[in-house]
Amino acid sequence: MTARPANAHQARLLRLLRDGGPNSRAQLGDQVELSRSKLAVEIDRLLETGLVVADGLAASRGGRRSHNVRLAPGLRFLSVDIGATSVDVAVTNPELEILGHLTEPMDVREGPVAVFEQVLALADKLKDSGVAEGFDGAGIGVPGPVRFPDGIPVAPPIMPGWDGFPVREALSQDLGCPVMVDNDVNLMAMGEQHAGVARSVRDFICVKIGTGIGCGIVVGGAVHRGATGSAGDIGHIQVVPGGRQCACGNHGCLEAHFSGYALARDAESAAVDGSSAELAARLAAAGRLDAADVAAAAAAGDPTSLTLIRDGGARTGQVIAGLVSFFNPALVVIGGGVTGLGHTLLASIRTQVYRQSLPLATGNLPIVLGELGPAAGVTGAARLISDHLFSPA
Amino acid sequence: MTARPANAHQARLLRLLRDGGPNSRAQLGDQVELSRSKLAVEIDRLLETGLVVADGLAASRGGRRSHNVRLAPGLRFLSVDIGATSVDVAVTNPELEILGHLTEPMDVREGPVAVFEQVLALADKLKDSGVAEGFDGAGIGVPGPVRFPDGIPVAPPIMPGWDGFPVREALSQDLGCPVMVDNDVNLMAMGEQHAGVARSVRDFICVKIGTGIGCGIVVGGAVHRGATGSAGDIGHIQVVPGGRQCACGNHGCLEAHFSGYALARDAESAAVDGSSAELAARLAAAGRLDAADVAAAAAAGDPTSLTLIRDGGARTGQVIAGLVSFFNPALVVIGGGVTGLGHTLLASIRTQVYRQSLPLATGNLPIVLGELGPAAGVTGAARLISDHLFSPA
Repeated sequence: MTARPANAHQARLLRLLRDGGPNSRAQLGDQVELSRSKLAVEIDRLLETGLVVADGLAASRGGRRSHNVRLAPGLRFLSVDIGATSVDVAVTNPELEILGHLTEPMDVREGPVAVFEQVLALADKLKDSGVAEGFDGAGIGVPGPVRFPDGIPVAPPIMPGWDGFPVREALSQDLGCPVMVDNDVNLMAMGEQHAGVARSVRDFICVKIGTGIGCGIVVGGAVHRGATGSAGDIGHIQVVPGGRQCACGNHGCLEAHFSGYALARDAESAAVDGSSAELAARLAAAGRLDAADVAAAAAAGDPTSLTLIRDGGARTGQVIAGLVSFFNPALVVIGGGVTGLGHTLLASIRTQVYRQSLPLATGNLPIVLGELGPAAGVTGAARLISDHLFSPA
Repeated sequence: MTARPANAHQARLLRLLRDGGPNSRAQLGDQVELSRSKLAVEIDRLLETGLVVADGLAASRGGRRSHNVRLAPGLRFLSVDIGATSVDVAVTNPELEILGHLTEPMDVREGPVAVFEQVLALADKLKDSGVAEGFDGAGIGVPGPVRFPDGIPVAPPIMPGWDGFPVREALSQDLGCPVMVDNDVNLMAMGEQHAGVARSVRDFICVKIGTGIGCGIVVGGAVHRGATGSAGDIGHIQVVPGGRQCACGNHGCLEAHFSGYALARDAESAAVDGSSAELAARLAAAGRLDAADVAAAAAAGDPTSLTLIRDGGARTGQVIAGLVSFFNPALVVIGGGVTGLGHTLLASIRTQVYRQSLPLATGNLPIVLGELGPAAGVTGAARLISDHLFSPA
């Protein structure tokens, strides 16, 4: 696809068709501020580009029956969500519905060349499965800050070898289509906004608790990326003055006390020092422990695991309480791998936020788990590239 | 004034004339995306409303000389900045230059009726001085959260008697002109953005340290007020787990450990318990102490006062460090009464932020004192009402 909308009206029509699916000219006309004749001109132009196709007659609304239009059904977006230890690659249709989705373990520390080799192989596999012949655009998420206009990771703490790598340019050449790159947490927020729990919410934060902890910020419906693309980097907010040493060099950062990584380490300590027989048995069986083990042990009634989850939730809640006071969001979404810890974690976060933030900010504030799970990131990636392609060139 | 711009083009032209002063039609044409003929139509309509007047011929740019236009020079905005213990009332011209400015002590706890009686008396005094015959609009700042669309304070902790009082409606009747109401800290941010240190900065935070502590947040050039108008309420972010009891009922809030109020209390304790002879002498002379006394004692070399300021700066810096990690602003402005503590306070805040936030967020981050002092709030109030009046009705 090379065509792009010629003006803001066309861009808006394309996004309406993306978000609402096939629609009649009459109903589109109700949603945009265009005269009947101007609407017809813009839709005819979009039909000429091939981005939009006719889709039969609409049901009668009383007068002459209106013609339906839809986005070209053959459009395909490639969505890539690179985590610290795994990668998700998916293909969506123009309405951002996922047609195929593959996940594989991966180590982001192996650097961009190795990671993109794996990504391209997964993309080929999806093509071979028949869900796409080619890609009209690709959205990529990486687990670190991104200089957004260029699509280049900047000083990513857990991604040695990625600093300054021209992800956007390199992948665009490999794939032969436009590419947009963003932080993985921003994509999770956009995914939940597009098709998840944050639908129609214009001001919210989305906290992702995975190997590390980050936060996507949506202001007035748009992602806030900050002056240098590092907005939402809340893993290094201090929660324990003089607390644990963090990989960043400071002490007492949230991530040092709670994250997928910290939780695994704490669980292994508890297994080794004899404070949890349940965790010790799991460590003996598996050779290592992760957040899922702690969740399973907690479900089996292990008090040490419950305490680890509750303490982690309280630390996270302490940081979120500050963000709620500062930002006064309409919604807080909790997502990421550690949400396997479920309602114990959520209850602990909620307790802390409702106790520490002022009632005016929390009175109508829902704090909820994300709805989309691993689909949030890839849905957000498709949203990112479609927002770009459905903007005036 | 009853006229309002009829469309977004006219609104934009009015704001350009407000922010840039009198200008030629030719140069205005360079700044807006309008054809020459459409620009002429819109300016002629603005001339008809009386909001804009002709202002002679512009200097030649080579061809035919262009006509100058300007905002009607008789337009007057009333700007009111209500603090906890004082009130500022000013009058501005349409370019938001302050023509007269009065300050009086005031106790916000006396409630809206008494406070507005004082405000109206000050407004009359300004009229009597000859700077205004009447007011075309008024902007009002109050020291607490505001339900912005209605202009009604909500659950303001330090303002008993104000909760739910229809400030906007009541003052609009008293003054006979349109009124807009906002939080005082948001007005400070808008003032520094209009004419102070944040000119042309689109993403910044402005921390006001007065009797309490609050923060104005500007995203993409516009104030972010949050879901319930309480965004920026950072005084109750926890800085000392299990710390001092705060008026809000929690322990260890920033305001409980540092603010104009906390500083005065700490200074009086140090005077009484014998740890500072300098403060004891000042207390004996004045009967009470405030932030200015601590500043003077510190300037005279009193180590206790210096420590109070440094500790307060470190607590404030600890909170700002978290906000910087979360929001990644392009600028941090420090303002409010306590900025009399000056560079000792600023150095202490900077040290903490640069130490605790990640280098990517602080690499190019200036942390500076506001430029406008007490003029920031009233300038912001004039900006608020002019933004409203210079919007399509």
